[in-house]
Amino acid sequence: RTLRIGLIPGDGIGREVIPAGRRILEALPASLGLKFSFVDLDAGFETFKRTGVALPDKTVETLKQECDGALFGAVSSPTTPTKGYSSPIVALRKRLDLYANVRPVKSVAPSACFPDPIDLVIVRENTEDLYVKEERTYDAPNGQGKIAEAIKRISERASSRIAIMAGEIAIRRQRVRESTGGAAGKKAMVTITHKSNVLSQTDGLFRATARAALEQARFRDAGVIIDEQIVDSMVYKLFRQPSDYDVIVAPNLYGDILSDGAAALVGSLGLVPSANVGDGFAIGEPCHGSAPDIQGRGIANPIATLRSVALMLEFLEQEEAAARIYQAVDGNLAEGKLLSPDMGGQAKTDEVVEDILRRL
Amino acid sequence: RTLRIGLIPGDGIGREVIPAGRRILEALPASLGLKFSFVDLDAGFETFKRTGVALPDKTVETLKQECDGALFGAVSSPTTPTKGYSSPIVALRKRLDLYANVRPVKSVAPSACFPDPIDLVIVRENTEDLYVKEERTYDAPNGQGKIAEAIKRISERASSRIAIMAGEIAIRRQRVRESTGGAAGKKAMVTITHKSNVLSQTDGLFRATARAALEQARFRDAGVIIDEQIVDSMVYKLFRQPSDYDVIVAPNLYGDILSDGAAALVGSLGLVPSANVGDGFAIGEPCHGSAPDIQGRGIANPIATLRSVALMLEFLEQEEAAARIYQAVDGNLAEGKLLSPDMGGQAKTDEVVEDILRRL
Ligand SMILES: CC(C)[C@H](C(=O)O)[C@@H](O)C(=O)O
Ligand SMILES: CC(C)[C@H](C(=O)O)[C@@H](O)C(=O)O
Repeated sequence: RTLRIGLIPGDGIGREVIPAGRRILEALPASLGLKFSFVDLDAGFETFKRTGVALPDKTVETLKQECDGALFGAVSSPTTPTKGYSSPIVALRKRLDLYANVRPVKSVAPSACFPDPIDLVIVRENTEDLYVKEERTYDAPNGQGKIAEAIKRISERASSRIAIMAGEIAIRRQRVRESTGGAAGKKAMVTITHKSNVLSQTDGLFRATARAALEQARFRDAGVIIDEQIVDSMVYKLFRQPSDYDVIVAPNLYGDILSDGAAALVGSLGLVPSANVGDGFAIGEPCHGSAPDIQGRGIANPIATLRSVALMLEFLEQEEAAARIYQAVDGNLAEGKLLSPDMGGQAKTDEVVEDILRRL
Repeated sequence: RTLRIGLIPGDGIGREVIPAGRRILEALPASLGLKFSFVDLDAGFETFKRTGVALPDKTVETLKQECDGALFGAVSSPTTPTKGYSSPIVALRKRLDLYANVRPVKSVAPSACFPDPIDLVIVRENTEDLYVKEERTYDAPNGQGKIAEAIKRISERASSRIAIMAGEIAIRRQRVRESTGGAAGKKAMVTITHKSNVLSQTDGLFRATARAALEQARFRDAGVIIDEQIVDSMVYKLFRQPSDYDVIVAPNLYGDILSDGAAALVGSLGLVPSANVGDGFAIGEPCHGSAPDIQGRGIANPIATLRSVALMLEFLEQEEAAARIYQAVDGNLAEGKLLSPDMGGQAKTDEVVEDILRRL
């Protein structure tokens, strides 16, 4: 089978890590029976500066019509308000209805702060909440400057499907744990994150809908525990007892914040992958940004991207290929000899990639 | 001078820690020339269950007409949606226009995770953002269930005054550092937290207004550095390099999340105080909740409340009394003999309080 993959490097170190993603796909053993073809696509702030559009229609159309999946690097945000600019990744998620943003966070080895293994995944709703970006600005009635408002929108439909995705992921993870004999005692659990003590209607709807979805027989029979945390308390617990958590499901903005927080637990944003997932389509995307401070120096950590490739493959039902990549990455980290500077090492992006390719 | 203090224990362990707050005020040395009188006031979920109102008008009126300051314990949130219930602390902040929620977070001693001293304060806007609680629910047009919307409101006026408060706090902290010779190399800095890469109008207004407020001569001349972080990145940095930060200013919801996150850095929510501050009025409030799991056992950590008493006193311009309390608490923690269970100790609330009173 040949999978066609769109490559959208974007800005900054996105241009240094996406080529690594392509390399690992090309290096997968022939025995897996998979072939890949690639198409280079534009998006980002550089694209905006050149063409006036951050996400060209051609990129969206090519993904829709030709591709099975894609890899997205990172985008720079303008440092001053820029008329007409709007984040292309947010738009892409919406236009392709990639309704789930899946962000697994796993510790490499016990650390002084976290002696117990961390192995959780944040399942972030990816299409609504404050990310609908419906805003308006008006003059305060009393002449005291301006007032701006944004809409936070939560729907039963989106809350239900994201909770079901979270439940399915919990079942799949439990199955992997059982088949590998890993993490004795860890139970399949979905923690619903919300702030319904303040937002009784919006977050109340998310909470009630997610709970109803997870109370279905399919999840109950599989033993998926339903848990919940208010978002501020979730952040606190995430940092105090991260090993207690399995799958965390959250509306868009809380999911955004929680996943960066979780990344901090395992040492570097440069390790943490994500996938933007819709029905039959997935875009792998490293959680880190465009990192202007290190761009062009060839020292970006490629691991978040390589793991995002694996995650994309999982959602394209290529679990064996995905497992190969995860193992190769884990091998590199376990040995700890060729690490990029964010991990305390001195290796260049290419040296890390080559070490991982050798382990495939 | 006699200060009249409203005592609002609320629910759960609020009823165990607020009496500790009263005791320390009564135990302050006479040489400070301060006297206190107290008035007990109702609010909370228990009050709601008894009277149908979570924040009685009498509580608000008494605070407005008689009191110089107050202490608020904690409130339980109903575990299922409860018609007519609305958080009394959110309402109190708004009705008394306590526009700043000030939450200092300071490490006791170097830890394995954080060898460098953590000493930061989160200055949270306390009256608007999603906390305006303007929500509505309607049927989705396509028959696919319900949709709920909430308004996030950001005003120039509230953003400006909270940024000025943050700048003033940065100046005050710098002055204390200079006079005590503490924290060599730490500079006065305000980090503006926002998500203007997605919310260009609302968070864009917060960011631009805060920046303009902090660019005033008063802050520039005092050497206050203006810094900014996008909220997801702020959470990441907070956990990677907390010692880098001094004052963090944020809209209401981000401030809520960041302050619980910061509390996790120093070991226990049971240590972290807050003050809800308006012009000429302050309510001290421990950051922790009502903790139903330990309520009634007499083991709640009183330190968050005792420090909240000190913080309230600071904003009532009783800095010397405040300093006495901080020192007594630090003495208890430094010795580390009488600690509550959340700190790994076995002392009861009263034993911790008595140890701290002895050190006054
Ligand atoms: C760049 C930004 C718009 C984006 C988001 O908020 O979703 C990023 O933080 C992420 O998490 O992918
Ligand atoms: C109880 C809740 C409404 C409150 C808030 O969100 O402000 C609490 O989390 C806090 O931080 O004081």
